[in-house]
Amino acid sequence: MWGREMSAADEAISTQDMIARRSRLLGPAYRLFYDQPVQFVRGEGVWLHDAAGNRYLDAYNNVASVGHCHPHVVQAIARQAAVLNTHTRYLHETVLDFAEKLLATFPHQIGHVMFTCTGSEANDLALRVARTCTGGTGFIVTANAYHGVTSALTELSPSLGLPRPDASHARLIPAPGSEANAGEVFARHVSAALEDMRKCGIKPAALLVDTIFSSDGVFADPPGFLRPAVEAVRAEGALFIADEVQPGFGRCGEQMWGFARHDLVPDLVTMGKPMGNGHPVAGMAARPELLAEFGRRSRYFNTFGGNPVSAAAGIAVLDVIESEGLMQNAQHTGDYLVKLLRQLKARYPLIAEIRSAGLFVGVELRHGGQTGTPATAEAARVVNLLRERRVLISSAGPQGNVLKIRPPLVFGTEHADLLVQRLDQALAEVNVTQEK
Amino acid sequence: MWGREMSAADEAISTQDMIARRSRLLGPAYRLFYDQPVQFVRGEGVWLHDAAGNRYLDAYNNVASVGHCHPHVVQAIARQAAVLNTHTRYLHETVLDFAEKLLATFPHQIGHVMFTCTGSEANDLALRVARTCTGGTGFIVTANAYHGVTSALTELSPSLGLPRPDASHARLIPAPGSEANAGEVFARHVSAALEDMRKCGIKPAALLVDTIFSSDGVFADPPGFLRPAVEAVRAEGALFIADEVQPGFGRCGEQMWGFARHDLVPDLVTMGKPMGNGHPVAGMAARPELLAEFGRRSRYFNTFGGNPVSAAAGIAVLDVIESEGLMQNAQHTGDYLVKLLRQLKARYPLIAEIRSAGLFVGVELRHGGQTGTPATAEAARVVNLLRERRVLISSAGPQGNVLKIRPPLVFGTEHADLLVQRLDQALAEVNVTQEK
Repeated sequence: MWGREMSAADEAISTQDMIARRSRLLGPAYRLFYDQPVQFVRGEGVWLHDAAGNRYLDAYNNVASVGHCHPHVVQAIARQAAVLNTHTRYLHETVLDFAEKLLATFPHQIGHVMFTCTGSEANDLALRVARTCTGGTGFIVTANAYHGVTSALTELSPSLGLPRPDASHARLIPAPGSEANAGEVFARHVSAALEDMRKCGIKPAALLVDTIFSSDGVFADPPGFLRPAVEAVRAEGALFIADEVQPGFGRCGEQMWGFARHDLVPDLVTMGKPMGNGHPVAGMAARPELLAEFGRRSRYFNTFGGNPVSAAAGIAVLDVIESEGLMQNAQHTGDYLVKLLRQLKARYPLIAEIRSAGLFVGVELRHGGQTGTPATAEAARVVNLLRERRVLISSAGPQGNVLKIRPPLVFGTEHADLLVQRLDQALAEVNVTQEK
Repeated sequence: MWGREMSAADEAISTQDMIARRSRLLGPAYRLFYDQPVQFVRGEGVWLHDAAGNRYLDAYNNVASVGHCHPHVVQAIARQAAVLNTHTRYLHETVLDFAEKLLATFPHQIGHVMFTCTGSEANDLALRVARTCTGGTGFIVTANAYHGVTSALTELSPSLGLPRPDASHARLIPAPGSEANAGEVFARHVSAALEDMRKCGIKPAALLVDTIFSSDGVFADPPGFLRPAVEAVRAEGALFIADEVQPGFGRCGEQMWGFARHDLVPDLVTMGKPMGNGHPVAGMAARPELLAEFGRRSRYFNTFGGNPVSAAAGIAVLDVIESEGLMQNAQHTGDYLVKLLRQLKARYPLIAEIRSAGLFVGVELRHGGQTGTPATAEAARVVNLLRERRVLISSAGPQGNVLKIRPPLVFGTEHADLLVQRLDQALAEVNVTQEK
């Protein structure tokens, strides 16, 4: 071993030791990415560096949305943490400045915001508000949705694969496809779920969807397909909750929120992951008439939610999105990336479909085109081959056959070039293996 | 107005403006402390500074447990935030160092720890584990308990005063008193709750208690009173979950955890508030055999939970507790404070009982001694009078008649002197008003 960097052999030993230690300390409920898990020690922009000194192109992590360790965010956190960190039962200007800046990104009908620490807490709060305001208990979610890890949300997160309770008030419907009449089909599923609730004596509370359908496999088109479903739900007195934890904060390009793509205004909007660029901050925005009712019947306090440090982190993230034009970049780089991916698709029949909005991209792998068999094993192989080639992506969809590409928003066209070049190599290697 | 400090009149206007702005932006579900809410702009050790430049003695905030803005914690956060902030699906040494250091504070039977961002998430995860491992759905909590704000926990947090669902699987029992046979009485209530569950066909999952019974009014004595109740629960195959979100991390003096006072080992332990001195970090420690079962049937991932920055903050807090001898200080200052409070009790018949463990102190106010009427209005008055005198405390208990004193653990005897001097003045003023 020479200098501070480890050899590959030393690194492998160190990784095995760390996995054993992790299992001993954290127990068996945690999962690691990759056949060969990776240890990162440093991050900067779109790059993550491992313990051996190698750098990886991050095309997966949406949390560090304005780039790993962005100095403006780091400084905001460090500065406020040194001055005061307290809770919302005292007055503090920073949480109000954050709320004002955040609400300015929403349609005027969304007038209040409440702060939590995680997207799970935000979605769980939205369930409470929806139940309180509608008197209903029924929720409609998509068949491979993920909305969080609290007791109430695991039932609404079928992607976790947990057993469903017998008298569940959740109704699962197929995610929209990308066909031209996707809106009509999706609304039909929603109406069937509402009808089933009626039969079971369940009053509906809300339709809860991730507006980019990330864990269902990324479905963005045609724009507006959510509208008929939302109309059907509202006709029954239930609410529409837009889960923006993944699509929000400019990732989908051009607009700040995923629901904007569908030209509608949600009743409740939840947000999280990129909100503090890694600092635990999340929240729920709402139509004021709903919180008026919720406030009459309930109250909310989250010890760490909306504290001055979290608020400072959140303000800094909004600053960077604006000052660095990251929404525009998400659109620009996203378009460029999809153009390159379409060129790959022409060469690799395994690529059945490319779906995207801005820098949220799904590449569906199937044997035999769009109606063929899901190429689940191949998708996992591609993800692991890219890790070997130091590019980070993941997979999604009920069969895990959709490559999920979701990089920090500072991703440039040069990074898209590198990603597609390595993806080309990985797909070629998968092809060779198949031909053997 | 002279220099940077505001006059009292300007401050009052600024406060009213800020309250209006807050209501407009955050909505009506939030609450503020005090008849005259206070705006803090800076914190240091046991002091909080308002916008007009006045300093307040903090005898209430348990989150900033090692002192507001402790430089060791602030530096740990700033340093790690600048290097890397990512999640537990990659390997990282800091979360393991934190887990190891934290687990070393527990009895050997507690072998794993899982990380969340808030105490609510930790308690909610404990519910999931208890349900999964026992197959039960019934939980026993005390009548004015608070365990968190998720959908599942609001049902187990009667202190929130929300309507309870019809077919609730929660059973509420009276909090233990401080009588000599408190353990026997409490165990009887637990057994009755188990019997009632049996009648209703509900399989019990766990007894969940805050080991200092904070919102029930602070009950610490006699040590060991929890043991018979825990035995009764275990005899039915259910678990004991120790909620250490408030009593934990050395607050109760001499020992790190509230359950240690009762000489027993919980099945699951949840922790939060002081864990990162204000940084959103929380967790659940567990007996490995339980997580073995949970890991077989379920899995857990919390995007921000156990990230390197949170872990660095948590390590720094443990460092400070140890290096500054804060457990010993909690015991020493707590004993000194209680001695002074007993002297006040001799002079003010309104003080019916003083209960404490380390720096967790409850002062119960009643008219006519221990069996008299709860002095609810007087307790609220004392809290507000102390705020006018720039000392922060709060109240607890089902009737709100217990003064809750729960300062940062760097509270010294000189701070106890000041607190008791101001409390003396406040009680005198309450007495005068009563005589009028």
